[in-house]
Amino acid sequence: MKDQIDVDKKYFSNISNRERAIFEGGISMGALFHQFVGTPVSIETVDLLEKSIESSFKLQPCIVDVDVNIDKQKLKDSLSEFDYISLDGNMLDVKIYVEYNDVKAIIRIEYIEKLNYPLMYIEHITK
Amino acid sequence: MKDQIDVDKKYFSNISNRERAIFEGGISMGALFHQFVGTPVSIETVDLLEKSIESSFKLQPCIVDVDVNIDKQKLKDSLSEFDYISLDGNMLDVKIYVEYNDVKAIIRIEYIEKLNYPLMYIEHITK
Amino acid sequence: MKDQIDVDKKYFSNISNRERAIFEGGISMGALFHQFVGTPVSIETVDLLEKSIESSFKLQPCIVDVDVNIDKQKLKDSLSEFDYISLDGNMLDVKIYVEYNDVKAIIRIEYIEKLNYPLMYIEHITK
Amino acid sequence: MKDQIDVDKKYFSNISNRERAIFEGGISMGALFHQFVGTPVSIETVDLLEKSIESSFKLQPCIVDVDVNIDKQKLKDSLSEFDYISLDGNMLDVKIYVEYNDVKAIIRIEYIEKLNYPLMYIEHITK
Repeated sequence: MKDQIDVDKKYFSNISNRERAIFEGGISMGALFHQFVGTPVSIETVDLLEKSIESSFKLQPCIVDVDVNIDKQKLKDSLSEFDYISLDGNMLDVKIYVEYNDVKAIIRIEYIEKLNYPLMYIEHITK
Repeated sequence: MKDQIDVDKKYFSNISNRERAIFEGGISMGALFHQFVGTPVSIETVDLLEKSIESSFKLQPCIVDVDVNIDKQKLKDSLSEFDYISLDGNMLDVKIYVEYNDVKAIIRIEYIEKLNYPLMYIEHITK
Repeated sequence: MKDQIDVDKKYFSNISNRERAIFEGGISMGALFHQFVGTPVSIETVDLLEKSIESSFKLQPCIVDVDVNIDKQKLKDSLSEFDYISLDGNMLDVKIYVEYNDVKAIIRIEYIEKLNYPLMYIEHITK
Repeated sequence: MKDQIDVDKKYFSNISNRERAIFEGGISMGALFHQFVGTPVSIETVDLLEKSIESSFKLQPCIVDVDVNIDKQKLKDSLSEFDYISLDGNMLDVKIYVEYNDVKAIIRIEYIEKLNYPLMYIEHITK
């Protein structure tokens, strides 16, 4: 696509292919977290929500696949009297698969208990 | 459910059944709009996104059904160079079906061009 | 404002003034919760975030004032290793003041421990 | 901070300082966009909203400053009958200043009319 090439040349010529993959993966992970945290979710709806998050974020530039896993045990343990909760970021385990030219990367978020924090990091990247 | 009854008695005895249905419907419509506006969406993912919004908001108290319709023509007309967009509130046409005791209501959001505004109103309610 | 009157007549003639106040208050409370849950917040930024939420939701129809209180003790207790967290709905205590014609209402959200749920209800309304 | 060092060593030893700065900047820009798009905003509240977005996202790892500019002309041009709108991503012009060890970067989002897209890119980075 001609315009795609122009964008890369005009806006991204100051970074390497590896850096571009990391940039796009970081954007999509930050976006995914802040878009979907708060969504009502229950044991019955969690599978569909995972699929919807995956299909939404596969649309973003350079993202080839997304694998969303919401922790069902945490979900069960924190259910309210009304049998659902607002999705909590600490329940998310997500892998975003990025490709840009010859670079492949997997961006991961997982809750790290020692930090009390859902950490985003790069699980794998082409050298 | 015992606790449900206690909640109604303790927190909602100051309003009528009709008012309760209106309150819960209003909450869910406001919530739905602000949760999902901004989600990446394309022609390919719009059906799944609609289903996921529906299943998420059926979980809320007193909501028995949700019917989400994202305007496909507006979606096509506003697609970016990257073949997707962030969901815009002006594309939403949603009906939320509420039931509380003997009252049934349909809460609606639709874009009103004359107001340049996605208006939420009560399309139908039991007298 | 002429258009405001038309909207009321065209879209809201099927409900009473009390019901309209309840509807608009419910919408705004649902919206507020789902817009701001997930926002990064710390002890240092919590006051400004409260003010910003208040000013944003005073813009909605029929809302005359908003009073947002984020639970500072819960915030401190749940801080991550990085000294901030994503705003959790269970930390919110909010009053939305609604006026429509002769009706005044206060819509409240507060976390109810017994329900493990941030409950939205009508704290006060003109009879 | 001891734990900070452990995190860097354990989770980020596979990327360079430049890549880390790019990763953290990308995360924060994606997060900012999807957290705040949809927020009610008017001419009167836009300054406070800008400040609140800035202070919220300065909390994220490696972010030293954030400069948010919401396009006031676009805001005026798209105001609804009710004198406010939901914040649209196409109105955002944001610079996020990142520092990690010896690397400084500026991550930018701006609406590119030719693409009909709010593009995120790296405006400046230490070589």
